[in-house]
Amino acid sequence: MKDVRLTIIGFGAVGKGFAEVLLKKQRFLEKNYGINLKVSAVCEIDGSVVNEEGVNLEKALTLAAEKKLNEHDDWNTMKSLEAIKEIGSDIVLELTPSDIKTGQPGLSHIRESLKKGKHVVTSNKAPLAVKFSELRKLAGDNHVELKYEATVGGVLPIINLKKHCLQINKIESIHGILNGTSNYVLSKMADEGVSMEAVLKEAKNLGIMEADPSYDIEGIDTGAKVVILANSMMDMDVSFSDIDVTGIEDVTAEAIELAQKHNSVVKLIGDVNGLKVSPRLVPVNHPLNVSGTLNAVMINTDVAKNITVIGHGAGRIETASSLFSDILDILQ
Amino acid sequence: MKDVRLTIIGFGAVGKGFAEVLLKKQRFLEKNYGINLKVSAVCEIDGSVVNEEGVNLEKALTLAAEKKLNEHDDWNTMKSLEAIKEIGSDIVLELTPSDIKTGQPGLSHIRESLKKGKHVVTSNKAPLAVKFSELRKLAGDNHVELKYEATVGGVLPIINLKKHCLQINKIESIHGILNGTSNYVLSKMADEGVSMEAVLKEAKNLGIMEADPSYDIEGIDTGAKVVILANSMMDMDVSFSDIDVTGIEDVTAEAIELAQKHNSVVKLIGDVNGLKVSPRLVPVNHPLNVSGTLNAVMINTDVAKNITVIGHGAGRIETASSLFSDILDILQ
Repeated sequence: MKDVRLTIIGFGAVGKGFAEVLLKKQRFLEKNYGINLKVSAVCEIDGSVVNEEGVNLEKALTLAAEKKLNEHDDWNTMKSLEAIKEIGSDIVLELTPSDIKTGQPGLSHIRESLKKGKHVVTSNKAPLAVKFSELRKLAGDNHVELKYEATVGGVLPIINLKKHCLQINKIESIHGILNGTSNYVLSKMADEGVSMEAVLKEAKNLGIMEADPSYDIEGIDTGAKVVILANSMMDMDVSFSDIDVTGIEDVTAEAIELAQKHNSVVKLIGDVNGLKVSPRLVPVNHPLNVSGTLNAVMINTDVAKNITVIGHGAGRIETASSLFSDILDILQ
Repeated sequence: MKDVRLTIIGFGAVGKGFAEVLLKKQRFLEKNYGINLKVSAVCEIDGSVVNEEGVNLEKALTLAAEKKLNEHDDWNTMKSLEAIKEIGSDIVLELTPSDIKTGQPGLSHIRESLKKGKHVVTSNKAPLAVKFSELRKLAGDNHVELKYEATVGGVLPIINLKKHCLQINKIESIHGILNGTSNYVLSKMADEGVSMEAVLKEAKNLGIMEADPSYDIEGIDTGAKVVILANSMMDMDVSFSDIDVTGIEDVTAEAIELAQKHNSVVKLIGDVNGLKVSPRLVPVNHPLNVSGTLNAVMINTDVAKNITVIGHGAGRIETASSLFSDILDILQ
């Protein structure tokens, strides 16, 4: 049995989801992979739960649900950067929400972790959209891995899919529906023949959308994911400012109706080699025509031709599937 | 640089497609994987091209295209089983067409290879549909790998996807469109409102269907794939006789029209945990609603929930993507 220590930075929906899955899968990991995954620190904005022998995660989850994580026996006021520097760990999970323009605070967390010779697994697209090549180089220089399957398409296997299932293929293009919120809006408009305004209002009332969905609607979230796919899957070296982004804010009910008359739907498409995000017509029987909050990515290659992967683009529990895929890839 | 020797058994469409891709990717494999893949034997029904230093594949392809493989400098009358026993190789590629009831001749080839301590990569579903557990045990007993990504869904990553991208997930169910021919027939009937008879006649005239598509239409091909997925992905121990198979032969134009009225399509679905193959109604906006010869597999899991993969179910060049995925997985 091999002990592996994790530091979890950010104990929001994704962090807590990961912890829940880890608790459920601990025996599976021991039995099938011979590893004992222990969490040596859970860091939040105002302090950290630290225990190098392994944080009591059940207690952390219970207390966090009551917004009383600071009542954990192992709580102290150590901040994330200090925990990254001081607390023993093999892999840092960077799961904070970060600013799409500056990449912070995730960018600093990832830099510090890599410099300290710790592998990083992240679901945080902002730092990668801002400083991809710097971070990739930093990981290489420090002989550690930087893995980010969860940053693009949530649970969809894309980066590890290329690495382990499409090895011989040269990727010629990638097109994707990479944002669940905008896809939900477009699907609702098409299914119910209503305006975007009406869909947004209903969604907010139902609590199924963020208070400010503008990053989703304006294509910014999709653009950040295009940056990551271009750099990681197509050997480019681009950042967010290189992407030509048009959101769905001007897509009208009339445009969607017209598309339907031509047996098509309007979808917000991230075109990775075109470095472009825009609403496009997609034939109804095309694999990228997925509805609701689903994400879909079509990879065109020289050997396998077209491979499309469809799945949930987000979800507190679901995202753990990609995080574990990265962790186990590092450990193998 | 590591030398790896392959024996190719069966030089039909898939074998030749593999050889073509190998020739194109030789430098890529050297550079990115540090391996020099050499083919020590190419075996056909009436003899083999054998050269332990590496068969001249370009010449083999040119001659095979003219049906003159037996004019290759390295041709001799050695049969496949003898080549497996006598010729040095690390991995045997079993790519023959085999009888779905007996699994032969592939079954003997795979048995002999495993007994000789050689890894096996195959696109041949028949031996696995007939003797899965025996072959799995034989591989384990001889400490070699038996890999078969190409047997199910052609280019679709399914088995390696589970192994490398969905590690933490418990698979709860798998449903798939696993046969391109029957999906082509159903799609054409729906799109053009014509009878199955008319579609089959046209397809045969165009040369896009086998002379006898009954294994496809009757669901037998799909059933064999269900066996492989049940055993490999869901830890079952079943064979073809355990599968309840209903094909599409009785699906009428009227049934398809009625489905359309309910915003659905009729698809031939392989239900892996139900051990069942049958035509089922699929909503038009469901990820499994793929048209033409596409294949699609939806995997339901406890963590990632639903992941669907869509791609070409066959193709001489395309299939090489899955074969190389298996080869490189063995070598890593």
